Amino acid sequence: MVSSGFRDLLLKLGLPEGRLHVLEGKGRIEEDTFEGIRYVRFRDSAKGFRRGTVVFEDGTVVSGFPHIKRVVQLENGVKRIFKGRPFYVEEKVDGYNVRVVKVKGRVLALTRGGFVCPFTTERILDFVNEGFFKDYPNLVLVGEMAGPESPYLVEGPPYVEEDIEFFLFDIQEKGTGRSLPAGERYRLAEEYGIPQVEVFGLYDRSRIEELYDLIERLSREGREGIVMKTPDMRKVAKYVTPYANINDIKIGSHIFFDLPHGYFMGRISRLAFYIAERKIRGEEFDEYTKALGEALLKPLVESIEEVSQGHEVEESFTVRVKNISTAHKMVGHFERLGVKIHIEDIEDLKNGYWRVTFKRVYPDARREIRELWNGLAFVD
Amino acid sequence: MVSSGFRDLLLKLGLPEGRLHVLEGKGRIEEDTFEGIRYVRFRDSAKGFRRGTVVFEDGTVVSGFPHIKRVVQLENGVKRIFKGRPFYVEEKVDGYNVRVVKVKGRVLALTRGGFVCPFTTERILDFVNEGFFKDYPNLVLVGEMAGPESPYLVEGPPYVEEDIEFFLFDIQEKGTGRSLPAGERYRLAEEYGIPQVEVFGLYDRSRIEELYDLIERLSREGREGIVMKTPDMRKVAKYVTPYANINDIKIGSHIFFDLPHGYFMGRISRLAFYIAERKIRGEEFDEYTKALGEALLKPLVESIEEVSQGHEVEESFTVRVKNISTAHKMVGHFERLGVKIHIEDIEDLKNGYWRVTFKRVYPDARREIRELWNGLAFVD
Repeated sequence: MVSSGFRDLLLKLGLPEGRLHVLEGKGRIEEDTFEGIRYVRFRDSAKGFRRGTVVFEDGTVVSGFPHIKRVVQLENGVKRIFKGRPFYVEEKVDGYNVRVVKVKGRVLALTRGGFVCPFTTERILDFVNEGFFKDYPNLVLVGEMAGPESPYLVEGPPYVEEDIEFFLFDIQEKGTGRSLPAGERYRLAEEYGIPQVEVFGLYDRSRIEELYDLIERLSREGREGIVMKTPDMRKVAKYVTPYANINDIKIGSHIFFDLPHGYFMGRISRLAFYIAERKIRGEEFDEYTKALGEALLKPLVESIEEVSQGHEVEESFTVRVKNISTAHKMVGHFERLGVKIHIEDIEDLKNGYWRVTFKRVYPDARREIRELWNGLAFVD
Repeated sequence: MVSSGFRDLLLKLGLPEGRLHVLEGKGRIEEDTFEGIRYVRFRDSAKGFRRGTVVFEDGTVVSGFPHIKRVVQLENGVKRIFKGRPFYVEEKVDGYNVRVVKVKGRVLALTRGGFVCPFTTERILDFVNEGFFKDYPNLVLVGEMAGPESPYLVEGPPYVEEDIEFFLFDIQEKGTGRSLPAGERYRLAEEYGIPQVEVFGLYDRSRIEELYDLIERLSREGREGIVMKTPDMRKVAKYVTPYANINDIKIGSHIFFDLPHGYFMGRISRLAFYIAERKIRGEEFDEYTKALGEALLKPLVESIEEVSQGHEVEESFTVRVKNISTAHKMVGHFERLGVKIHIEDIEDLKNGYWRVTFKRVYPDARREIRELWNGLAFVD
């Protein structure tokens, strides 16, 4: 439900009354509060409002971040999307998406789903220069938070050795969600010292061999992939490395029964398209098959063995926070997401930060394994 | 729709009128004819009628063959299902299920879905002694048709070197669908010379090590698995070999985009349960991961390469028939199943049989691969 103040605000912003009614009825628009700042988040799209859009009580609208289209055949994808036009190639960093915005005097970090993330919000000014928002109060910094100590992912990119970092990859206007041209973003990031994703340069379809080399290098280095963008940011597409496809399968296999089948099948088919496009044969092909088989089986077998011995299916992760209360707020945040989590350990790093270790359990995956292990007979 | 004669018959047999109405409305009960013999088949279950049940115009009811429950942890499955009681272990033959029945003076072979199969019906008396039905007109022989020349499967068990064979594994009463006790079936099969699935003997839970040895041997020999049955046929469960899980994945990977994700995921998880139960480590574990990876990737990559060169995704198979008209009837039968198939070649074997080669194409799988290969950008 949405309170009457927000109701009036949303109608004034152009949300049709009928649509608001439907969204409320289905619980697809929700009102929330973060440290006294009230907001609503769109769990579905509506006319003029993308899914993930956040509207604050002062009328600030932060548009949802759109899903970037994927190609699985790089050469033909590049030709089809960009035709003869040039495009920037940037790194696709393996982290979680945040939109950073200043509202009512506070810099807040929003998750993809439209929550104010207590952890990211506490930490964001470690990475982002607040001066940017003084000069550009109407802009939103969009980037990836990535590193080995992340609340949402079990791994980070190889070059973030500890903690977490912010990597800018888009700057959008409040309200419209329109992106600044890429060149403008590069200039602003430089000017304000905002860390950004690696930019590999301007390519076009004639340089496909160089793109292949880049993908191979990124894969060798354990990196996720690339995002290709026309300078005006109108056309954007992503492509991931074979490394990332296999590594995602390995991470997912541990919680096999908690993930949709498509999670695995999509990655297997992307790997197959890579192998077919690059005409990989012989020993290199064998290495991929072995890596894929192991990624699928090993963590799953380990989870089955764990559960058969009475243990949980679980993942643990750490984050660094300035205030222990932030860790407790994260537990509350996860609870609202329906995630079962608890704090395992808190360690004083003696540098103004605490390292908090969380454990997340997967009761559904565990129940499924336990039933099957216990000899359940089922029709499939 | 069902004609009025069948309508009256079904109501007399106890099908509630409301249920008949619903089934007709959804097209889940269909009337059909085979060489002048009229029948209806149930595509869904209804009170007293299992899915796949066939009712003939003379009132003969052949009950649908029930799905056999699967266990993925053999030891605990055996304990849970059979407790301390003994059970026969029979081979699970990799073929297609047929119910053989005499109706209006003709021996007919019904598929699982309740069609009279033109091919199997033409060939069934090559394998089954018609004398059985003279003595037991009220019984239905249920078995697996399996071999390298099968219209429904691309492979058969290793010990059928050519053509196809019939393997009895159940005898049921017309009408009730009740199974004869296993011992009675063994005796009748022996008496009438009806070929049956291999029976490995009577086991109980204390002989789990011998069962493990059996599964290992069957897997080594490229065989599908076992079905365990109490002598009274009241409790039945199946278990498949790691070989079959991997081999099914290999066969399926060729038509990856035509199969539901669960086809692959189920087999991967069964393989993982086998590895966990048998505590497989080291080199043997590595062999499984490699075999799984190759089974998933190789045929899929080949299909992508085929489609990228403008070819179809296709499978070819041969059958041996006495009359060429039977091959044409099979094309019609497949068309009703929505399968795209055509005759590629007909060869006179000079022994009263023709070898007919069919080609089946998978337009949906091809379209999906072609779109992706051509660089489609999509949100997933």
